[in-house]
Amino acid sequence: MSERTLSHEQLDTPALLVDLAATDRNIERLLARFRGGPVAVRPHLKTVKSPRFAQRLLAAGASGVCVAKLSEAEVMAAAGVEDILITTELAGAPKLARLVALLREHSQVKVVVDSAAVADGLDRALAGAGLIAEVLLDLDVGQHRCGVLPGRPALELARELRSRPSLRLIGVQGYEGHLQLCADATARERQCRDALAMLADTAQALRADGHEIRIVTTGGTGTALICKTCPGITEVQPGSFVFMDAAYRRVLGNLYEPALRVLTTVISRPRPGEAVVDAGLKSLSTDSGFAEPKHHPDMAYRPAGDEHGILAWDPLRRGEASAPELVVGDRLELIPSHIDTTVNLHDEYHVSVDGRAYQVWPVSARGKVQ
Amino acid sequence: MSERTLSHEQLDTPALLVDLAATDRNIERLLARFRGGPVAVRPHLKTVKSPRFAQRLLAAGASGVCVAKLSEAEVMAAAGVEDILITTELAGAPKLARLVALLREHSQVKVVVDSAAVADGLDRALAGAGLIAEVLLDLDVGQHRCGVLPGRPALELARELRSRPSLRLIGVQGYEGHLQLCADATARERQCRDALAMLADTAQALRADGHEIRIVTTGGTGTALICKTCPGITEVQPGSFVFMDAAYRRVLGNLYEPALRVLTTVISRPRPGEAVVDAGLKSLSTDSGFAEPKHHPDMAYRPAGDEHGILAWDPLRRGEASAPELVVGDRLELIPSHIDTTVNLHDEYHVSVDGRAYQVWPVSARGKVQ
Repeated sequence: MSERTLSHEQLDTPALLVDLAATDRNIERLLARFRGGPVAVRPHLKTVKSPRFAQRLLAAGASGVCVAKLSEAEVMAAAGVEDILITTELAGAPKLARLVALLREHSQVKVVVDSAAVADGLDRALAGAGLIAEVLLDLDVGQHRCGVLPGRPALELARELRSRPSLRLIGVQGYEGHLQLCADATARERQCRDALAMLADTAQALRADGHEIRIVTTGGTGTALICKTCPGITEVQPGSFVFMDAAYRRVLGNLYEPALRVLTTVISRPRPGEAVVDAGLKSLSTDSGFAEPKHHPDMAYRPAGDEHGILAWDPLRRGEASAPELVVGDRLELIPSHIDTTVNLHDEYHVSVDGRAYQVWPVSARGKVQ
Repeated sequence: MSERTLSHEQLDTPALLVDLAATDRNIERLLARFRGGPVAVRPHLKTVKSPRFAQRLLAAGASGVCVAKLSEAEVMAAAGVEDILITTELAGAPKLARLVALLREHSQVKVVVDSAAVADGLDRALAGAGLIAEVLLDLDVGQHRCGVLPGRPALELARELRSRPSLRLIGVQGYEGHLQLCADATARERQCRDALAMLADTAQALRADGHEIRIVTTGGTGTALICKTCPGITEVQPGSFVFMDAAYRRVLGNLYEPALRVLTTVISRPRPGEAVVDAGLKSLSTDSGFAEPKHHPDMAYRPAGDEHGILAWDPLRRGEASAPELVVGDRLELIPSHIDTTVNLHDEYHVSVDGRAYQVWPVSARGKVQ
C-alpha cells in the first residue's frame, strides 16, 4: 500500500498525531509484564480501530484481540486478524446475518451471551448456516451494564446453552468497567479482587458442572496489572494503554505515556489570557472531561463549540509578556481526555515514525457505527 | 447516482434515521417566516454536513449557506453550492493553501477575520495567487469566543483591511451563540436585541467610515425569529432547526419537529427497570446532555460506554407487565441531545422517503476534520 507522508509543516489541523515510539514503549511496557506468565493479553481494539496497531500488539505477544462491535471485527478480520472476541452482545436479524457471513470465513471470531434470548438469536442464525461459534458467558461482576449474574444464574444459563447446538461454551467474561478510573488505588485493587473472585468462582463452578471453560477474561487499562495476580484469570483486555489519555493519567500517573495528541492551530487572540484554537467538540470528545495542553501545564483547555476551543490562563500570574506568547497561526498539542471517543472522531492518524515525517494511517473502523 | 435503499427490517443499528417529510416541514416552517421579507436565510450546514440537505434548503429559498470549516466548504462547493460563508477564522499555511485552491474555482466563498494577524495571513496567501476574497468582520457580541469588539476596535480593524488589497470587506458577522439555548424566552429576546444592536450599530459606523457593508449576519435556531425583527440585520444563520434536537426542544418546544433519530436495538435485559441498547458514546454525543427516547417518555436514556446505553424506568410505577415490555432484539428510537455532534459520529443517513424504504445518504463532510 502506498503511503501518504507529510512533513510537520504540511500537517493541517486539527489532526491526530501519534508518537509511534511512545506507542511501542506503552505496548512493550504492558506486554512485558505478562510475557511468559499464565495470563494472556487480548487487547481491546475499540481504542485504536486500526489493524496497523493491532498487528503491532500481536507482534509484541498479544494472544488475540477484543473488539466492541461487529464492524470492528469485520475490519480486523479483513486485515488478517483471526482470534477476535466481540465483547458486546449481538442481537437483531441484520447483525446476526453479518455475523454468519463473518464466521463462514473466520471461525475464530468469538461472541458473548448474557441471556437465553441472545443465545437463541445466535443459535438460530448459525444453525441455518451450519456453523458453530465459540461463546463466552458475559457476567455482571459489578458494572451493572450487560451480564448475567455470577453463581446460579450463570450456571443456569450455561446449562441452557447445552441445548443450543451451534454454540460452544468456552469461557467467561466479566468486565469491571466501573473500577477502571477509580482514583483510590487501594480501593480499586480491593474491589477488583472481589469482582474477579466472583468471575473465577463462577468459572470453577461451570467446570464442576461439566463445561469446558478455558478462557476467563476481564480487565482494562486501569486494572490489568491487578488482574494478573488474581487467581483463575486467563487473560486481560486493556485497550487505552496503547495511547493513554488524560483521564487514565489522573489515575495511573506515568505508567504509560501519552502517545497521541490532537494538533491544533491558534485562530484568534481576542482577549488577554485566552487563545481560541480550531479543536472543538468535533475533534476532541468531552465525555470524560476536557483535553489538556501537552506543553503548557499553566493553561486549561475548554471546548467552545463544534470547531472552537479556548485555551485560558491567568494573564497576571503568567504575564502576557512571558514565553510562550501565543499568536495566530501557532500550533500546539492537546492530550485527549478520553482516547477511544476522540479517535472515533477522526478518519486519519498522522503517525510520527522518525520525529519528522508523518505517515497517514486510516482509522479504518470508524464511521461504521454498526 | 445509484442509491442504496433499505427496508426497515434491513436497517442495522445504531443508525441515523431521517424523516424527510418532517425535515421538509421544518425547512418550510422557518423559510416561510422570512420569504419576501428583508432578512435572508443563510443556513448553517455544520449541522447536516450533506449537500443533499443543502440543496433542499436552497430550493426552499435560502440565499446561501454557512459552514464552520474549510472541509465543509470544499464538500459543498464540489457539490455545486456557490455562495458559502466560512464562519470560523482560518489560519496556518496548509489551510490557507487549500483556501486559495478553493477560491480559484469558487469565487463566492467568503471568509471572516477578527484580527490583523488573520487578515495578514489571508492577504498574503491570496495575493500570491492573484485572488481577491470577500471578507466579513467577525464581531464578539457577547459570546466571548472569537471576534473583534464592536465599535472602535472593529472600525480600526476595518481601516487596516484597506491596506490588504486581496481582501474586500463586504459585511459583519456577530453570533450570539451564548443565547441560543437560554431557556428564559424573555431574557433571550432582550439580550439578543442588545447584542444585535451592537452589531447593527457597528455596521452603520463602518458604512459612515466609507465601507460597503451589505451583509450583517447573525443568529441561530434559538434566535432566528428574534433576529428577523431587529433593525439592520440582513441575514440569519440557523442550522439545527432542520433536524431539531432535545436540547433545542427544551427551549423552543414544538416550534420544529424532531426529524432525526438514532435507531437502536435492545441487546440485554439484565435487571428489572433497565434495558441495555447498542447506542453509546460513539453514536450519540453527550456534550449537551443525553438523548431522549422518542416514544417512551417514562424512560430515561444514559450512555454506558462506547457502544452501550441504558434505558431506565421505574419498574414499580410502570409495572414490568405493562406495555411495551422490552425484549432483546426490540428496536427503538432516540432523539439526540445535540444534533450537530451526533450527526458528526455517523457516515450515513437513512432517509425515510415514503415511510417504508430508507435511502442511504452519505454524511459527506464528516471525518474530514480539518
